[in-house]
Amino acid sequence: MKDKMLKLKEMIHEICDINSAIALLGWDQQTYMPRGGAEDRAFQTSTLSHISHIKSTSQELGTLIAELKNSLDGMAPDSDDACLIKVAAREYDKKTKVPAKFVAKFSELTAMAQTVWEEAREKSDFKIFQPYLEKIVAMQKEYASFFPPSAHVYDILLDDFEPGLKTADVKKIFGELRTTQVELIRAVSERKQINDSFMRQDFDEKKQWDFGVHVISAFGFDWSKGRQDKSAHPFTTGFGLGDTRITTRFLPDYLASSLFSSMHECGHALYEQGIDRKLDRTFLGTGASLAVHESQSRLWENIIGRSMDFWIHFYPELKKYFPSQLSGVSLQDFYRGINRVQPSLVRVESDEATYNLHVMLRFEIEIGLMEGTLDVKDLPEIWNVKMKEYLGVSPENDAEGVLQDVHWSYGSIGYFPTYTLGNLVSAQIWECLERDIPGLHENIRNGKFEEILQWLREKLHRHGSKFKPQELVKRVTGSEITPAPYLRYLDGKYKEIYGIV
Amino acid sequence: MKDKMLKLKEMIHEICDINSAIALLGWDQQTYMPRGGAEDRAFQTSTLSHISHIKSTSQELGTLIAELKNSLDGMAPDSDDACLIKVAAREYDKKTKVPAKFVAKFSELTAMAQTVWEEAREKSDFKIFQPYLEKIVAMQKEYASFFPPSAHVYDILLDDFEPGLKTADVKKIFGELRTTQVELIRAVSERKQINDSFMRQDFDEKKQWDFGVHVISAFGFDWSKGRQDKSAHPFTTGFGLGDTRITTRFLPDYLASSLFSSMHECGHALYEQGIDRKLDRTFLGTGASLAVHESQSRLWENIIGRSMDFWIHFYPELKKYFPSQLSGVSLQDFYRGINRVQPSLVRVESDEATYNLHVMLRFEIEIGLMEGTLDVKDLPEIWNVKMKEYLGVSPENDAEGVLQDVHWSYGSIGYFPTYTLGNLVSAQIWECLERDIPGLHENIRNGKFEEILQWLREKLHRHGSKFKPQELVKRVTGSEITPAPYLRYLDGKYKEIYGIV
Repeated sequence: MKDKMLKLKEMIHEICDINSAIALLGWDQQTYMPRGGAEDRAFQTSTLSHISHIKSTSQELGTLIAELKNSLDGMAPDSDDACLIKVAAREYDKKTKVPAKFVAKFSELTAMAQTVWEEAREKSDFKIFQPYLEKIVAMQKEYASFFPPSAHVYDILLDDFEPGLKTADVKKIFGELRTTQVELIRAVSERKQINDSFMRQDFDEKKQWDFGVHVISAFGFDWSKGRQDKSAHPFTTGFGLGDTRITTRFLPDYLASSLFSSMHECGHALYEQGIDRKLDRTFLGTGASLAVHESQSRLWENIIGRSMDFWIHFYPELKKYFPSQLSGVSLQDFYRGINRVQPSLVRVESDEATYNLHVMLRFEIEIGLMEGTLDVKDLPEIWNVKMKEYLGVSPENDAEGVLQDVHWSYGSIGYFPTYTLGNLVSAQIWECLERDIPGLHENIRNGKFEEILQWLREKLHRHGSKFKPQELVKRVTGSEITPAPYLRYLDGKYKEIYGIV
Repeated sequence: MKDKMLKLKEMIHEICDINSAIALLGWDQQTYMPRGGAEDRAFQTSTLSHISHIKSTSQELGTLIAELKNSLDGMAPDSDDACLIKVAAREYDKKTKVPAKFVAKFSELTAMAQTVWEEAREKSDFKIFQPYLEKIVAMQKEYASFFPPSAHVYDILLDDFEPGLKTADVKKIFGELRTTQVELIRAVSERKQINDSFMRQDFDEKKQWDFGVHVISAFGFDWSKGRQDKSAHPFTTGFGLGDTRITTRFLPDYLASSLFSSMHECGHALYEQGIDRKLDRTFLGTGASLAVHESQSRLWENIIGRSMDFWIHFYPELKKYFPSQLSGVSLQDFYRGINRVQPSLVRVESDEATYNLHVMLRFEIEIGLMEGTLDVKDLPEIWNVKMKEYLGVSPENDAEGVLQDVHWSYGSIGYFPTYTLGNLVSAQIWECLERDIPGLHENIRNGKFEEILQWLREKLHRHGSKFKPQELVKRVTGSEITPAPYLRYLDGKYKEIYGIV
């Protein structure tokens, strides 16, 4: 048994090493690669992905996992080894159910679809993208058919991002969320709007960078085990637990973009940096799911990073970086400005209070597509109707409507709900922090985050992906994913800001 | 046959893609990787190297190559396909002669030896490194034993860096070189020494960077197919022919370091950027040998970059970057300063006129070690004796003597002579340029390098490693590697500078 466990780890280490190299190829592509490298980079990535796939689905690995599964009864169920066997079995089972031919065909389709999506968005013409999305939906249905039937066809897709979570769970959660969120937004819209024009001035990039670095260093980002670079779209990646990298981007005339995206990616990175080193180079050495990951980025970016406590400490410092731009702006003005609620067309630019509605709209569309109750060709119209219904705004064209997100062109269906689930979990965790750390607010007002990070590491980070997301959230917060804390958080914060009684 | 050729390319493409990923892991390690990434990076590199080795020595590849070799008679011998078959056969033959166990053991030994060498150099104590170098020499002898006997045991090692070149060739070339070089240095030492103290001032790093970029852009470095970064030791690498990267380093109090190392690495990069794109992702898509590569770096760094013609154009520009530092320094002073000849202890800091003697000393020691006529334990003494004999200087300690180079700790024996061979080839090419480009000197005086680069691309670069180095040098210059042009170049230049009649 011990020998077999060692052999399993050896095989998994090899796969993880290859996957780390693939991640580095991707990081480099988005940060430093000259454009002349693009063609070969595609080949390199594809070659390594193919090797990784072959090794991840080998007969030898399958036999080993099957043998080790027989020993699970004799093992402590939460032990690293037991969890690794279970996760490896799950991954292997999934990967081997899907024919290699399908994987290659889907990969070709989505590579093409991304280029087509770019063109369609540029020309703001959904019809260009429509045939590709139709094929993607068809192939996602085919993908689902490789697995045993589930209560809902969407379950299969969701499971790739949130192992164990069901469509019915998400529907229930979103149902509880929708009414209250829509009500809040309506109430806000009846109040006097906040002026945040001070955010739109010239802000020197170097100073933006330095202030962002100052903030995430205070959060606890470990620079000996990570770095920050620039890229067109901010992201977090890593190549083993000693090297987690984030990126940010700068808008010279908009302060919020780089600052909050640095905090957001730092939240992801703190999670990875906090995973038990013993899980390194295994399938357990990463976050438990997209939702759990997003709970960390949103906690630091929004619940902490957009709180009054935080800015009591950091606003005087920010003013030192930008004295002229912020000279007439009080702490209260600033706090209200960065928390302005304004229903808008584009998800990635939307505020905390409206964000989830963007997600719900996409979730409903995806469900319709997978159920077959909705045709791809009708998406632009449905999109616009739902936008009006949920957010009271209407896109002028497809580019700022149904074509705004890249996800579907990647072939990712089932991804969007994880954003909202992450928001919910961030608030569940926040309530635990308020309960467990007596000086929480004072700490933040003093720019001290050690206790928060310590708590997160101990309760959440170190476990990596040993547990499925619902189980992990329950272990950490005492409850599975639930919307109540997030609604309490939103209500408390925005009724105060907008003076709603 | 056509199918087999396609299959061969497919297999070689895969190996090249993996090797490119390995190169990226290495580039990143030396440029941006946080120190926490070191441990996993070693695993990643080792895993991919292992996979590359397995694929490079597979039975399937061997059979395919053997079959294709039978078709060589019917092919144009200089065609890309014929050259690829020949090079693939050579590589395969070499790689499969060496047992995998030996490769793994040698790799472990040298990984350890590098760490030990660092410690030994730090403490300036050769004895710490001695047992490791003894093992390396023993294993290099064992390595040679895997191959059919050659005229000299050193031939086998040399062949890894300069395919086809023999120890006897190098001995003959070095023999012709030594007397004349020693004489020149003696003559120089009898003249009044040049003052180059102006090089040792404060030079702003950003300005150094910008001027270096200006120069290599003028040389023709293609920024859409490459980039420059900083690293502790300058190097050139690449990940396919569309992405060639160089690095440089800065000494804030010494102008020459970054400037000439940028030009040097740019010379390497121009070679790679000029290789026929059709050879990409094959074993032919890289420089022909280390010596040929070094001929390119030395041509741009020394023959062009330290010429009066070059500085007639660029010195006025350099003065704009550093007006106060260079205010009292005339063009003539500057030119003489950057060409100061001064026998010194350290190879990498040595000038054009003395550099080759550093190399010859190492070559003679390596020959002695491999022949068994010289013991590792005696190296410090022999080193010092030879330094005195060739250069008239004596190291005070091992760190600035026998421990100064990293190469032996890597296990590289047979590498050093390629530096000098590269110098010789650079002068052979220079004489061809003088013959073929009528306006050569005027072009350089005007900062124009297109014709030079065009000539190099047409005659040399585009061929990649289709031909063995001696054959290639003969094709390009009409002669195999020979010291006469380099000696003419040195004599002409330095007798003028030092006023030797």
